[in-house]
Amino acid sequence: MSKDYKQMWSDLEINLEAHDGLLGVLSDAYTNIYLSQKNRPEGMKYFDFVISEVHGLRIEEIVEAKKQGRKIIGTFCVYVPEELILAVDGVCIGLCAGADVGTDEAEKYIPRNTCALIKAFMGFKLAGLCPYVQTADLIVGETTCDGKKKAYELFDEMIKGKLYVMEIPNKKGQDDKALWLNEIQRFSAKLEEISGKKITPEKLKEASTVVNNKRKALQRLASLRSADPSPISGLDALLVNQVAFYDDPLRFTAKVNELCDELTVRVKAGKGVSAKGNPRILISGSPMAIPNWKIHAIVEGSGATIVGEESCVGERNFASLMDESFSSVNEGLRNIADRYLTINCACFTPNNERLIDIETIAKRVKADGILHYAIQFCTPYMIEATKVRKVAEKRKIPFLRIETDYSMEDMGQLKTRIEAFLEMMGKGVRV
Amino acid sequence: MSKDYKQMWSDLEINLEAHDGLLGVLSDAYTNIYLSQKNRPEGMKYFDFVISEVHGLRIEEIVEAKKQGRKIIGTFCVYVPEELILAVDGVCIGLCAGADVGTDEAEKYIPRNTCALIKAFMGFKLAGLCPYVQTADLIVGETTCDGKKKAYELFDEMIKGKLYVMEIPNKKGQDDKALWLNEIQRFSAKLEEISGKKITPEKLKEASTVVNNKRKALQRLASLRSADPSPISGLDALLVNQVAFYDDPLRFTAKVNELCDELTVRVKAGKGVSAKGNPRILISGSPMAIPNWKIHAIVEGSGATIVGEESCVGERNFASLMDESFSSVNEGLRNIADRYLTINCACFTPNNERLIDIETIAKRVKADGILHYAIQFCTPYMIEATKVRKVAEKRKIPFLRIETDYSMEDMGQLKTRIEAFLEMMGKGVRV
Repeated sequence: MSKDYKQMWSDLEINLEAHDGLLGVLSDAYTNIYLSQKNRPEGMKYFDFVISEVHGLRIEEIVEAKKQGRKIIGTFCVYVPEELILAVDGVCIGLCAGADVGTDEAEKYIPRNTCALIKAFMGFKLAGLCPYVQTADLIVGETTCDGKKKAYELFDEMIKGKLYVMEIPNKKGQDDKALWLNEIQRFSAKLEEISGKKITPEKLKEASTVVNNKRKALQRLASLRSADPSPISGLDALLVNQVAFYDDPLRFTAKVNELCDELTVRVKAGKGVSAKGNPRILISGSPMAIPNWKIHAIVEGSGATIVGEESCVGERNFASLMDESFSSVNEGLRNIADRYLTINCACFTPNNERLIDIETIAKRVKADGILHYAIQFCTPYMIEATKVRKVAEKRKIPFLRIETDYSMEDMGQLKTRIEAFLEMMGKGVRV
Repeated sequence: MSKDYKQMWSDLEINLEAHDGLLGVLSDAYTNIYLSQKNRPEGMKYFDFVISEVHGLRIEEIVEAKKQGRKIIGTFCVYVPEELILAVDGVCIGLCAGADVGTDEAEKYIPRNTCALIKAFMGFKLAGLCPYVQTADLIVGETTCDGKKKAYELFDEMIKGKLYVMEIPNKKGQDDKALWLNEIQRFSAKLEEISGKKITPEKLKEASTVVNNKRKALQRLASLRSADPSPISGLDALLVNQVAFYDDPLRFTAKVNELCDELTVRVKAGKGVSAKGNPRILISGSPMAIPNWKIHAIVEGSGATIVGEESCVGERNFASLMDESFSSVNEGLRNIADRYLTINCACFTPNNERLIDIETIAKRVKADGILHYAIQFCTPYMIEATKVRKVAEKRKIPFLRIETDYSMEDMGQLKTRIEAFLEMMGKGVRV
């Protein structure tokens, strides 16, 4: 970390001692998993820096933005429209939910068999370890799954009533579309209310361009991974997708494009992170929040390359753009509503569009196998895995279904299963 | 059983050998748990008979109804409006979901950590053990929880496309009400379509009266349990509430009222199933489908009396009536939509109305303690239990939270916990 942030953290009521411990563990994990990789693109240095300052410089920027009167909006889901937050000069931040932190505290409120991501966001707050949640003026929940929907009710008491819940419908019919459009309108009114700023067509257009440009950069990165060999590791690409949720969007987009420029050169030169012909894996399923690098570390540690993430921290976050051709705020809100309903979360029933997405991505990235990842107790993705298996069967590629939490206890077992899965591809692994 | 139904079961493609085994286990359990009770009301003889014919006479009646052109509609949730089914001369049947049956088969499709009720409805079908599902012309699912919502997608393939899903919204705002009313309208159109019958104001009024009368009889039963001593055991009252989901509604209502007449005499005479002053327990939480008598058997086997079930198989099924004062079908549909949204399932967020309900019921039945029951992995009720605990604390009565499945493995552990809970009430148990 570039400087001492203790005073800032203390002002944010962070548990300093435990926080030092957390940063130490994070730094060690990053060194072991990330910095030990070979052939990393130069452009990843920016993201290494961002991670080293994850609770430092970025928090300082946010505290500064707050001083300037900008509102800090915390989120947990790709269904929360970043365009609207930017349109009121707000800062949109994905909150900490990726580590086994404060679990004992969280389990006093929610059952042990709740998914690790939910336990984590509650645990981070209860243990005083997430400076992002401390700075937030509003935290936006959604009704995507039973666990989050019900846990938010308890979370609201922990964050002193700062919670706002957006209703994501269960289907995508006409009534659902009408409900969702009204939710978008209500959310924009809420943002105007707390920021004291009016959303104008100009502001919304500007915000839409910013977010679309971020998506385009991430699409570009995704598309470069279709090359064989892939010019970037799955670990590094995952990191970029994770950082997308809390970095400044303009700077982030520029840095991703810089990285992509470098990767384009690599692809032209036939240079990659691993040997050509190594097994190429598509990950599909639950989101992986920072620092959840578990599956990528095992897969790539076993010599295969992850070439795509059909996940909220991945394709579901950037696959579709918002239509920027609107002339009024209402028209813009309608475009936002339409754009977000193209995200095929397993919370919808039926959700066949997701299966089509997976098939399309598998084809595009030339996947040799699909690894379905579900956070343990993530019921929607766990059950939908049964259908994803059929997509792999249709493409005649191996399928592996993994359910795990954030602990390291099952690393050995997972490694054995993943190695067996990679062997099914009948390709030798050459590092 | 009064006669040999083998031919009928065989025609319904029931797995005869396994089915004989199931009925044997059910009969033994019923003898041990139900027939061993003391001071049972005479009126329970009818329900003993119904249980002895659960897959016999009632199925014969349904097969007969089917021959007469009536449609058989299977359901799993109190949100499916029985009035509409009766208004097209349909038969509304709660499907088998209360026993550990076909679990291994079900776990090939859905994860092990899915609630027992969902595993059971899938297991009953896969193992060929539910004659109700075999007779059904339409099976109505709903989006009440992640597990059911996603499992129905797979279930639909098992029942050859006979599934119809009603969307239950996540909140109870204006948009949700509009969506739900449209769902009611769509469902009535679907019923008209498959039955070839038109819903008229007269038919809907008649059906509404039938269902309201059933609810009134169940309300009467619930209210008689407020007496100390209770004139009926919790086990027997639970059974009546379970039978409500598959018996003929007119006959059922008459029999419940007969039972209530007898109980009224008992109450006047101060006669009960247990001694006056024994601990009185309110159960709250997940539904208990036949033959899920586990918690009641332990609690009452320990000498306490269960005096109410704040559950879908209980209060949530009968607490509110439908407004019968309508003059057009559309008005009737609106009344149906309104009535069903008064059911406070944990699938809604927020769901403070349920907490008010629990407090009201606890007061009415003079509960000495609240036992919160959740089927393991039933996330909405499990998380909401944290709030239910506060209701008990407010009333200064003990609270016990239990999560369990349909197996008998934890009976000893549960008995120990429940006995400790009953001791907290500081009342001696006199049998």
